[in-house]
Amino acid sequence: MPFYDSVVPAYLQMLASLSAGLKKAEAYAAAKKIEPAVLLGTRLFPDMLPLSRQIQLSCDFATKGSARLSGSEVPAVPDTETTFDELQQRIGRTVDYLKNYKPAQFDGGETREITFPTGPGKTTTMSGQQFLTSFSLPSFYFHVTTAHGILRMCGIDVGKRDFLGAQ
Amino acid sequence: MPFYDSVVPAYLQMLASLSAGLKKAEAYAAAKKIEPAVLLGTRLFPDMLPLSRQIQLSCDFATKGSARLSGSEVPAVPDTETTFDELQQRIGRTVDYLKNYKPAQFDGGETREITFPTGPGKTTTMSGQQFLTSFSLPSFYFHVTTAHGILRMCGIDVGKRDFLGAQ
Repeated sequence: MPFYDSVVPAYLQMLASLSAGLKKAEAYAAAKKIEPAVLLGTRLFPDMLPLSRQIQLSCDFATKGSARLSGSEVPAVPDTETTFDELQQRIGRTVDYLKNYKPAQFDGGETREITFPTGPGKTTTMSGQQFLTSFSLPSFYFHVTTAHGILRMCGIDVGKRDFLGAQ
Repeated sequence: MPFYDSVVPAYLQMLASLSAGLKKAEAYAAAKKIEPAVLLGTRLFPDMLPLSRQIQLSCDFATKGSARLSGSEVPAVPDTETTFDELQQRIGRTVDYLKNYKPAQFDGGETREITFPTGPGKTTTMSGQQFLTSFSLPSFYFHVTTAHGILRMCGIDVGKRDFLGAQ
């Protein structure tokens, strides 16, 4: 089984679900006359990151995870999005970026030594498989699920089936 | 890289983080004189499942995912826990169950055809890799992250670093 299959489809599935949830959120905000910026600024708790950042970070973990696991250059993407449209475009660009990869680019990625930042002035080195399993996927799912939780908390009609997307 | 490495360590890492979060929650409830049953019954939103069920489901996805991917019998575990202690025991039993597996039991699991329930009277069949990537891991992380979100929402001092556990 190519290592690609453990990586890119996981990101793509959840980014599609995130985009669909965000579309529902936009329609909901319009129907309820909620300022988009208020909905996108909603947090589960005051010292957590708002919905917009959860989306940016989901994109970021997908992009950087794929880049590191394929030995590609890690792109620096500025977090400038403030509207539904801009966040949808960010997700769209991330999806395009991921779809650009050929499965073969991930061959051997599971044993590649990966060094990545884990705090201010701190890096950690581990195998690609360990990086994927212990850091990249859980971080990615953390932000996608937290975004979903914020949508739920706002009363938007998304359930676990929407979270998982089509099976 | 053995397929085991994509499966069991992912579950074990997050169950340890869940157990640590639950321990903080218990101390917090005691300090704040919050009824344990109230904290364990907290939900992100009224029609979502409470903390106790998020923990039971995390255990369930770890157990059933490992059983299916190793071709083992899928254990039926009743959801009877109502206290911090009982939930810690449930997590502990799940960890013991997972640690009992030998890596070789997962060999070939990525290409094994897996049929699993996806709704009332409905099953889906896919390869082990696809089952892991598109269903088992995202479902597992969904419940672990939602449990974490509930702890955060209750004001318990857990952050993303706690969520990820030791790197």
